Amino acid sequence: MTSPDPQRIYTAALVVIGDEILSGRTHDRNIAQVASWLQVQGIRLAEVRVVPDVEARIVEAVNALRAAHDYLFTTGGIGPTHDDITVDAVARALDVPVIVHPEARAILERYYADKGGINEGRLRMARAPQGAELIPNRMSGAPGLRIGNVFLMAGVPHITAGMLDALTGTLEGGARLLSMTIGGFIPESEVAGLLRDVERAHENCQIGSYPFFREGRVGSNFVIRSTDAAALSACRDALGEGLSQAGFAWTEGGI
Amino acid sequence: MTSPDPQRIYTAALVVIGDEILSGRTHDRNIAQVASWLQVQGIRLAEVRVVPDVEARIVEAVNALRAAHDYLFTTGGIGPTHDDITVDAVARALDVPVIVHPEARAILERYYADKGGINEGRLRMARAPQGAELIPNRMSGAPGLRIGNVFLMAGVPHITAGMLDALTGTLEGGARLLSMTIGGFIPESEVAGLLRDVERAHENCQIGSYPFFREGRVGSNFVIRSTDAAALSACRDALGEGLSQAGFAWTEGGI
Repeated sequence: MTSPDPQRIYTAALVVIGDEILSGRTHDRNIAQVASWLQVQGIRLAEVRVVPDVEARIVEAVNALRAAHDYLFTTGGIGPTHDDITVDAVARALDVPVIVHPEARAILERYYADKGGINEGRLRMARAPQGAELIPNRMSGAPGLRIGNVFLMAGVPHITAGMLDALTGTLEGGARLLSMTIGGFIPESEVAGLLRDVERAHENCQIGSYPFFREGRVGSNFVIRSTDAAALSACRDALGEGLSQAGFAWTEGGI
Repeated sequence: MTSPDPQRIYTAALVVIGDEILSGRTHDRNIAQVASWLQVQGIRLAEVRVVPDVEARIVEAVNALRAAHDYLFTTGGIGPTHDDITVDAVARALDVPVIVHPEARAILERYYADKGGINEGRLRMARAPQGAELIPNRMSGAPGLRIGNVFLMAGVPHITAGMLDALTGTLEGGARLLSMTIGGFIPESEVAGLLRDVERAHENCQIGSYPFFREGRVGSNFVIRSTDAAALSACRDALGEGLSQAGFAWTEGGI
């Protein structure tokens, strides 16, 4: 890890690969998981694309996003079956050949030694774009892959979690984006002017307003974000004071 | 609804707008909801992009996707606060002015009559790209909007659900994509060759393999998709027979 530049905003993109997400059959859980993990690394998730298991569509998304961001993550499509085409697509996007990675092959041979041994499908999971390094997978056999600024991870969320854990602290990031939340049974439409005015008065702060319906009542949580802890606190105090003056009760941390 | 062409594949894209998804704070539920609803309309969700509350980024995604697909849906950013900029961004993408929609204004005035009346923030929700029609919102006051092939919907999932319900049966679609699932405690890496061969032998069918870990065991569900019911059944039968011959127990409908 080289020395990070706290002034620079580091960004990442995520490509979620899989017909099962686009059919509605599977609810994606990787977007939120990758997003939360990136925040802790000082990296902002700036865009997500969900694409089908179609090589040309994966290539297009990978090439658009790896050029536009510091890091590009993919989830899905690195398993043993015919619809797992992420390695091929990323190799094509980067214009490198697909090879059998010797270290990945050795890992899979060990992992499957007492599970019927290696076979054609399992060997697919040792394939990699030439030049890729492995990302350890502590949950099951097949590793993730890193090549340049592109990180190929599993689609199954708990396997992805293990791969992210293995990458923790290894990526160069900037200042971590901090947030504070206050909320209450406050209709956002009654405080829209206040939110806008408080945000304008506090540089380097953003206020997001997230309405909800609960116990038959409307309410909102207001999330203030900044990389500057002092600015964040000042903005939170101003918003809390404004809400109180407008006659609304609110709770630190949101409700 | 004009007469649908059952041979044509109708596609849609979805732009999910919101910093709260990209920060990991909120788990998206609209992708799966919109995807499932589209399938019933005979329309395939072909791509999703998640973008931040930044006008230029929304404009870019809207213009790329509305040209590439029959329909484009957006979720999020149509509320009353300063970070709700979807109407402005779509108007800019379509190069039309933003107007106050008289019918939307009347709806909001009625809705808020006993809730403190209309104010500046609430009036924001009557703004629309010129030429837009309203999508009814049965859950709360502010309507969704349709302009050309672009549909602007709420971010709060149950409000989105009501808007989708109002649109049911109004969009031209093709043949509905059918699916059948079989599954069992079958490691996908032991049947990868079978899956590929069965798919190749059955035109117009796709087989997706979705592994899981449950009760300490690995297994997979295999989803066969086709618009042709007879082809679908034949493919399912062939896969079931192949799995049985390989010594695996499986369950209709998956596990």
